[in-house]
Amino acid sequence: MGGIADVAKRAGVSKATASRALTGAGYVSPTTRQKVVSAARELGYVASTSAVSLATGRTRNVGVIMPYVNRWFFAEVLEGIQRSLLERDLDLTLYDAKPGTVGRQRIFDDYLARKRFDGLIAVGLEPADHEIERMHAIDRPVVMIVGDEGTTCTVGIDDDHAVRRATEHLIGLGHTDIAFLGGGGADWAMVDRRRLSGYEAAMAEAGLADRAQHVQSEVTLPGGYAAAADLLGDTRRPTAVVGVCDEVAIGAMIAARRLGIRVPSELSVVGIDDHEFAEMFSLTTLEQIPREQGSAAVDLLLQQIAQPDRPPVDVRLKARLVVRASTAPPDTRA
Amino acid sequence: MGGIADVAKRAGVSKATASRALTGAGYVSPTTRQKVVSAARELGYVASTSAVSLATGRTRNVGVIMPYVNRWFFAEVLEGIQRSLLERDLDLTLYDAKPGTVGRQRIFDDYLARKRFDGLIAVGLEPADHEIERMHAIDRPVVMIVGDEGTTCTVGIDDDHAVRRATEHLIGLGHTDIAFLGGGGADWAMVDRRRLSGYEAAMAEAGLADRAQHVQSEVTLPGGYAAAADLLGDTRRPTAVVGVCDEVAIGAMIAARRLGIRVPSELSVVGIDDHEFAEMFSLTTLEQIPREQGSAAVDLLLQQIAQPDRPPVDVRLKARLVVRASTAPPDTRA
Repeated sequence: MGGIADVAKRAGVSKATASRALTGAGYVSPTTRQKVVSAARELGYVASTSAVSLATGRTRNVGVIMPYVNRWFFAEVLEGIQRSLLERDLDLTLYDAKPGTVGRQRIFDDYLARKRFDGLIAVGLEPADHEIERMHAIDRPVVMIVGDEGTTCTVGIDDDHAVRRATEHLIGLGHTDIAFLGGGGADWAMVDRRRLSGYEAAMAEAGLADRAQHVQSEVTLPGGYAAAADLLGDTRRPTAVVGVCDEVAIGAMIAARRLGIRVPSELSVVGIDDHEFAEMFSLTTLEQIPREQGSAAVDLLLQQIAQPDRPPVDVRLKARLVVRASTAPPDTRA
Repeated sequence: MGGIADVAKRAGVSKATASRALTGAGYVSPTTRQKVVSAARELGYVASTSAVSLATGRTRNVGVIMPYVNRWFFAEVLEGIQRSLLERDLDLTLYDAKPGTVGRQRIFDDYLARKRFDGLIAVGLEPADHEIERMHAIDRPVVMIVGDEGTTCTVGIDDDHAVRRATEHLIGLGHTDIAFLGGGGADWAMVDRRRLSGYEAAMAEAGLADRAQHVQSEVTLPGGYAAAADLLGDTRRPTAVVGVCDEVAIGAMIAARRLGIRVPSELSVVGIDDHEFAEMFSLTTLEQIPREQGSAAVDLLLQQIAQPDRPPVDVRLKARLVVRASTAPPDTRA
């Protein structure tokens, strides 16, 4: 195995250029980079990254902390982040911080403090106050996806806008008995509370405040199914449902089918997400694109790393209404 | 911020012990570790991990490479791996290597060679020959999940056993027109080919070789839906379907409902996975537990790291038949 000098010689560049090309610390043209990488490959040379990290003070690694990786939104965001980092030759260290677990406590108490990253992206984390303190204590830029505006950059959709569009779409079709399905309980996420508030505001503005109804459910497809099965089993059921997200909305559609309730003629359902299953279920929804949020978070983070004193930025994306076949005017025969 | 000597003094232990407790390099009792960690926290002391890594020759990091993170199996495996690593104070670097992408090529050509990990877990990777060469060239232990037996340790279910149990369950109910749904095309994964072979063998052993039918589909829920909609629209449709996995099987169930075909009286469906949606759809399936596979892979990898000369081990788990309401004897009224 050759050293960096051999690589530089073979590629016909200086040692400094060869080092930059291999470590990614500093600009090298794509052509030169390719020459150096080929030479290194031919010689079996690999830079020792631990040494590189100490020399440059940069780990070339981004930490990603999220409470779940096995839910659609989180997995899609992760893909977006990963893809963006890969384009820039940066590594991704994943921290899976499920709420209320010992693992999460250790991540905040020990892992973050090791600073094995140049910056951190926190996705849907809902940090407690002492966790926010820990995140600030590490003295590295942080970008939050689905987080509240505050002292860090944030990326997310405008939840109030999205749920209002969903609710107003149903009101516009003539519905007045519209239930909001999902969220509640001890783990009730801020984003889900915000969506409930937006629904309530839209109902109130249409003079339907006293018709507003929140049906609690776990924010998953099976959770939406179970809660909707209860709700729709009642003869005084609503004519329309706003799901806190598509998974809950699709759960409600499956429950309706099981009960022999036709969608959309007897029940309209609208979600928020444009989940990968939305089209198959012909679900009307507000489209958000989590991969783009992941990629936007990487952009923001790299800007913060380059200029730590930049004031924090909030990126709020507007979700787009996608009308499919799960919504229609209420059945007036009843 | 204090130094390691201050931390050791405050915790009442030696510098070496304090260092072991904070870096995880070497044994320290839980009580001592807690004392040192508390002292470090009070003093705001954080070990420099780059320095630690050079000193010990260990990165305390495990690389995980997988083609998708947003599919149920992969996300669940990732959770299992993450949880196991967290218990052992190890970091996880994620490489998302979608087949046929430039990103994947860079991971194999550049990222792996940087050796920023003590070992690698490859999940459902189906590496090409030159990719296998690269993986061996890094000279770090590798464990494959859903990989073929060979020169590395592997973890996975016994696919032949699982699909035979699924097919034999239907044959036992009296079905003879049983289609196999899923897989095929350019991206046809080895695991899905193996499952088709097992189905064909089970059909042949029951004297039904000429009734065997493979219907190609993308291995996703929408893919299963689309292919099943075609298959079931035909009047000479089969009376039962084996899905290559639960997502495909559930797609087939949704397609059947859309076409007014009752499950299970007019169509039996069986899957492989016990996906999080399987219970909601009352799907009969062969249960595998991907989190346990992730955790088993971590155990194997750590053994390989400790004893690099250990011969490779194959862990083949047997999936368990879970009978729900999607399978029944064929409708004999027809």
